[in-house]
Formats: sequence, C-alpha cells, structure tokens
Amino acid sequence: MLKYDLLREKMNQGKLDAVVAISPENVFYATGSLIITQKLIRPRLAIALLPIDKDPVFIVCGIEESLAKAESWMKDIRSYIEFKESPIDYLTDVLKEKKLEKASIGLEEDYLGIQYFETLRSRLPSVNFSDCGHIFEELRMIKSEEEIELLSDAAKATRKAVDAAFLSTKEGDSEKDLANKIRSNLFEMGADEITFLVIGVGKRSSIAHPLPGEFPLTKGEIVRLDVGALWRGYNSDVARTASIGPPNNEQKKIYKTLMEIYREVIQNMTVGKKFCDPFNLCRELYESRGLSFNFPHIGHNMGIGLHEHPMVSPEDKKPLQENMIINLEPFYRSPDGYGYHVEDLLLIRRDGPKVLTGSNLGDQIPIIE
Amino acid sequence: MLKYDLLREKMNQGKLDAVVAISPENVFYATGSLIITQKLIRPRLAIALLPIDKDPVFIVCGIEESLAKAESWMKDIRSYIEFKESPIDYLTDVLKEKKLEKASIGLEEDYLGIQYFETLRSRLPSVNFSDCGHIFEELRMIKSEEEIELLSDAAKATRKAVDAAFLSTKEGDSEKDLANKIRSNLFEMGADEITFLVIGVGKRSSIAHPLPGEFPLTKGEIVRLDVGALWRGYNSDVARTASIGPPNNEQKKIYKTLMEIYREVIQNMTVGKKFCDPFNLCRELYESRGLSFNFPHIGHNMGIGLHEHPMVSPEDKKPLQENMIINLEPFYRSPDGYGYHVEDLLLIRRDGPKVLTGSNLGDQIPIIE
Repeated sequence: MLKYDLLREKMNQGKLDAVVAISPENVFYATGSLIITQKLIRPRLAIALLPIDKDPVFIVCGIEESLAKAESWMKDIRSYIEFKESPIDYLTDVLKEKKLEKASIGLEEDYLGIQYFETLRSRLPSVNFSDCGHIFEELRMIKSEEEIELLSDAAKATRKAVDAAFLSTKEGDSEKDLANKIRSNLFEMGADEITFLVIGVGKRSSIAHPLPGEFPLTKGEIVRLDVGALWRGYNSDVARTASIGPPNNEQKKIYKTLMEIYREVIQNMTVGKKFCDPFNLCRELYESRGLSFNFPHIGHNMGIGLHEHPMVSPEDKKPLQENMIINLEPFYRSPDGYGYHVEDLLLIRRDGPKVLTGSNLGDQIPIIE
Repeated sequence: MLKYDLLREKMNQGKLDAVVAISPENVFYATGSLIITQKLIRPRLAIALLPIDKDPVFIVCGIEESLAKAESWMKDIRSYIEFKESPIDYLTDVLKEKKLEKASIGLEEDYLGIQYFETLRSRLPSVNFSDCGHIFEELRMIKSEEEIELLSDAAKATRKAVDAAFLSTKEGDSEKDLANKIRSNLFEMGADEITFLVIGVGKRSSIAHPLPGEFPLTKGEIVRLDVGALWRGYNSDVARTASIGPPNNEQKKIYKTLMEIYREVIQNMTVGKKFCDPFNLCRELYESRGLSFNFPHIGHNMGIGLHEHPMVSPEDKKPLQENMIINLEPFYRSPDGYGYHVEDLLLIRRDGPKVLTGSNLGDQIPIIE
C-alpha cells in the first residue's frame, strides 16, 4: 500500500537518493509482503531498497523468496543464502550495483543494529547515511480507504469477539477460560495472529499487562482485558472492563464516569486539534471529578504498527488530520487498587470522529453472568 | 533463570565491567520478567544492567513497573516516564550513578539501534563499548533441568495439539479450519501465545511460511504445517505433513524415506559431534537416495528464542553438548512441487538424544480422513 510518489517527494525534500526499509512494519508497508519470520528470527533480515529514480529491490532470505514473489508488487526480488551470505553484505553489493556508493541513503536508525551499520559504513565509506524512520512514519500516518476498511473490519470483529466471549463466560470461570473464548472467536472471525491478550480479575485489573491465568472470575469483582490481533498485517486493539455478576454502586459509578469522560474526549477529536488537546482535556475531566490521573498517554495511532505516532500524549503537538486512525484508551486506577479501562478505534474525518469498533459507548458496564 | 556466577565468569574473561541486556529474549532471561510490550512496541525499551561487582538494575517503562516487580528476582527496578524520559538517557544516568562512566560495557550490538548507541556514545565518551551478544548466546545454549522440563512439556503439548487436530479435521475442511483446531487445542493446553502457524495444502506445501487460508483439504493431496507457541516465555516448534485421505504410493514412499533419514540423523546427534555433522549426514542420505537437497540448515537450538545458536548448518562447527535442546527439521521438495516436512524437539544427553515431542517417528504418514 506504499504511495511511491509521496515517498519520492519526501526523499526529494530530504535530499535522499534512496531509502532502505528494514523493520518488519516498513518492509511490509513498502513491499506488500508479510514475512513473519522477520519478527521471529531477527537475524533473518528482509530489506527493501527504494531508490528515488531507479527500480526498487527486495532482498529476502532464500526460504522466503517464493512468498515474496507471490505477494510483493516489486519485480526485482533477490535472495541470500542464510548463514552463508550476510544480508547486509548483500545489500552493500546491490547498492554498489545501483551506483549508490556515493549516495545519500536513509536508514531506519532506531531499528538497524550497530553491527549492521558498522558493516555498511566500512564497506560504503562515501555514502552519506541518515535516518529515514520519520519518512515512513509520516507516510503511514494517513490511511488509505483500503487500509481504513481493513482496520475497521478488524476493530469491529475484535469488539464482537470480546462481547461474545463475555456472553459465553460465567462466574467462576478463569481468566484463561475467558481468554480461550476470545481467542477462538478471533480466529473464527479471521484473525491471522493474536498479538497480545492480557486479562486481570480483581486487583489484577490494575496491572498493565498480566497474562491470563487460573484466577477465577469471582462474583462482585471486575475484570479488565486488552486484546490485539493481526489481520492481513494490520492491527486491532480493544480494551474492556466488565463486572462479574451485577455491579455494585461504586463500580457502576466509576464506569459511568469513565464513559462520560470518554465520550466527551472523543467528541473533541476533530481535525486541526493537536494531539495533546484530547490528552489535556481528559486530564482536566478526571481532575474536575476528583479522579487521579497519572498516565503518559491515553491513545495512539495504529495500522501496521500497534503504537504509531502521533500519540495522544502531552508532548505531542502534531495536528489531528483526516484519515488518521486512533485508538483512544483512558484508564482509571481506583484508590483501592482496581483498574478500569476502555479502548475503541476512531477514524478522524472532516465531519468528526467515527467509532469504528461499533460500540455504543453506553454508561452500563458489561456484565459476566 | 540467569546463572549470574557464570555470567560474571564470562564478563571476567571478556574484561567487561558490566553487560546491558536489551533484546526481549535476553531481558527475560536476565530478569525473569516477561515484558510482552517490549516486542510489540519497540521504542518502549526494557533494559537490564548487570555489573560484574554491583547490584543489577532493571529499567522499565512506568506502565510495566508493577509486572516487573511481581516477576523479577532483581530488587532494583526503576521506571521511566514514556515519551517524557528517554530510556537510553535513563540508562546513561544509572551507569553514571554506578560509577561506570569509564567502564568496559557489553551491549547487544545486533539489537541496539544506531540512534540509541550514538546517544550512549556521546553521553559516555570514556566508556569502552563492545558486543556481548555472544555471552548471552553461550549462557542460554545449555539448558537447566527446569528449562528442559518446560520445553519438553511445551513440545509434547504442541505435538498433541496437532495430532488431535488431524483427528478432528476432515476432508474438505479448509486450512483455516485445521488452523483453528490447532489453535484451540494449544490454548486449551496452556499456551500463552501462538508465535506462528503456517499451513499449506497441495503445492502450497512447498512454500516456507504460508498463512492458513480458505484452501480446501482435498482428497489425494498432502498438507504441511509448522507451528510454534510460547509457554511462560519458552518456545515450542513442531512441523508435520499429512495426507488427506489414504496416501498414494508416491506419498507413502517419500514420507517413509524422509523418516528413515530423519531417524538416522537423530541417532547421530550425539555429544561431541559438530553441528555440521548431522547436516552433512542428512545431505549425504538425501543424495544417496536421489533426493534433491538444497537447504541452509536442517535444525536449530531453541529456548527463549525460536532459533538459537548453534544451527544445524554446514557452517556451524560447534560441538553438540549435553543439555542442548535442538529442533531437527528436514524438509523435502519433490520435483513436482510438494513439500514434506517433519520437526521434533531433541534433548542431547550423554547416553544419546531423547525425542521430547513424544513422537514414535514411524514410517506412516498421518492421515486426515
């Protein structure tokens, strides 16, 4: 789904002759080919070389060549022999072949390890290397309609997988039982991979990322979960809090307050606002209600990456733009140690934000009966 | 499960005052705490500083502090505020506090991005940085009895999850149907995460890593799968080939030949042999039977990492040692484009290799009826 024209424009602005994608996210974005072992076996590098005025080259491990050829729009796909040939040496040779040995080349400097970089620098001493991570970040920030549809379907399916699991889970079941229902539902609905699933019952609800365990869903408690899956290379990410059995007044009240704040913040996610604005509004709304607020962010853009920039954080002054896809996820930790958390996917449009998860954002806490 | 004494010994040999673990695998190995977002959200660094003669420090993002404190044996756990504080600046401050500003410090140079390294180097100009990846590699290479038990249970559960899915799948079901049965079984048996699951029916069996699709399991075809899961931070990895309906003579023959080779190679996985030996033997056995052989490796060590070193490859001259855990996985591509693949987990013991998956390594290809 790479917009090569836009990439070339940005390379031109940055005076770059070529960029090299090397992180799993940007290689998938640039090539359209999802090489899953790139994440699992990090030394098995996959590399996309995108020159400004020459044909791009996709370099993969031999074992992945057939997949790359089947999936990528790139014509020039080359493979190295694992353990025998170094993928970075291979890249160096291709750069020389493309007469880029004196070029300005953008690298992903937060991903590329020092060892690899030292090899590039020593074998290509006249190349001017700089960072190009921000270029991919900017390109991926605004989603295409195709990406929006994919992310929207994924968000809705994930929300439904959780809702259905709440309905088929009962008091006394364990976190793992609930987890397995969500997992089955997600795979039935077409998820390729579950990237994370954290569930915490009782006071475990306040831990950020607890793996589901044998802890029973005990009547009177709350349970918090946060789940993400991958759908053709794109993420979903939904968080929910439910009460086990009818909620008590305190639980009802906290949840209702959280949802009131949530809806108000969402309404203010409009084009032209800065990303720090909804964050600051959220903090004000917490504080005006006497709720403690101590979070570095309350949301993030999402797409091929789980957390993409901009973040809904006090430091982020970038503007909200049309066709950004944002997960908003306020969290509340009660003084007695419980965590309440909701998270839905938003699409920013000219006429206001759309809730893609299809949630009604109602005041009533979901109940596991 | 870190052996700190052994680490100190290796630091001493390498004249290092401290090592810094930063990859998800080595941070988990060093601290015992599984910070899943470290993989999912790469800039959210988790860092373990292990000095040779001072107390270790575990640096995590604020949101992960409660989990780190609950899980890690380390006492000194500190957290940075995401987006506001840079984890690398935070590490720099701790290194100064620990009076390591003129020390020799080992880094994971294949993982640490250039940007982070440049920050370290500019803020700590008198530190002598070098690579310590090989130290962790060596430490993790020989498994403890506790690790062996965990990996053994995981391997057996994964093999059983696949066997059971073959029994409950029928001709005409899709790759996805088979995938979902394996997934359910794995989660029912306690897997925390499925790291990968590739399935290919018919000629898709020869693609290395195809995601399961709607392709039907058609009578007369074969199906190949390779699946890995995570169990309390440790991997399982099993590959199988099955026929759909009774196998024809050609399928029977190829599978039987593959298993004969497989058993012979396994028998030769004995202490003191070099890792290239079983590889070379496997190649000889293929070639003596007229089977084409063109693979960079036929197996790998495994543990916290999916592919750990040594590899069963022609380049790897390291010796097989007691308590290594190896996935052996010969693959055969038939001239007409089908892929046959088996993979089991082996434990190297003084008295010979043990097959931990509990497979009987028999000649008969599994059948989906």
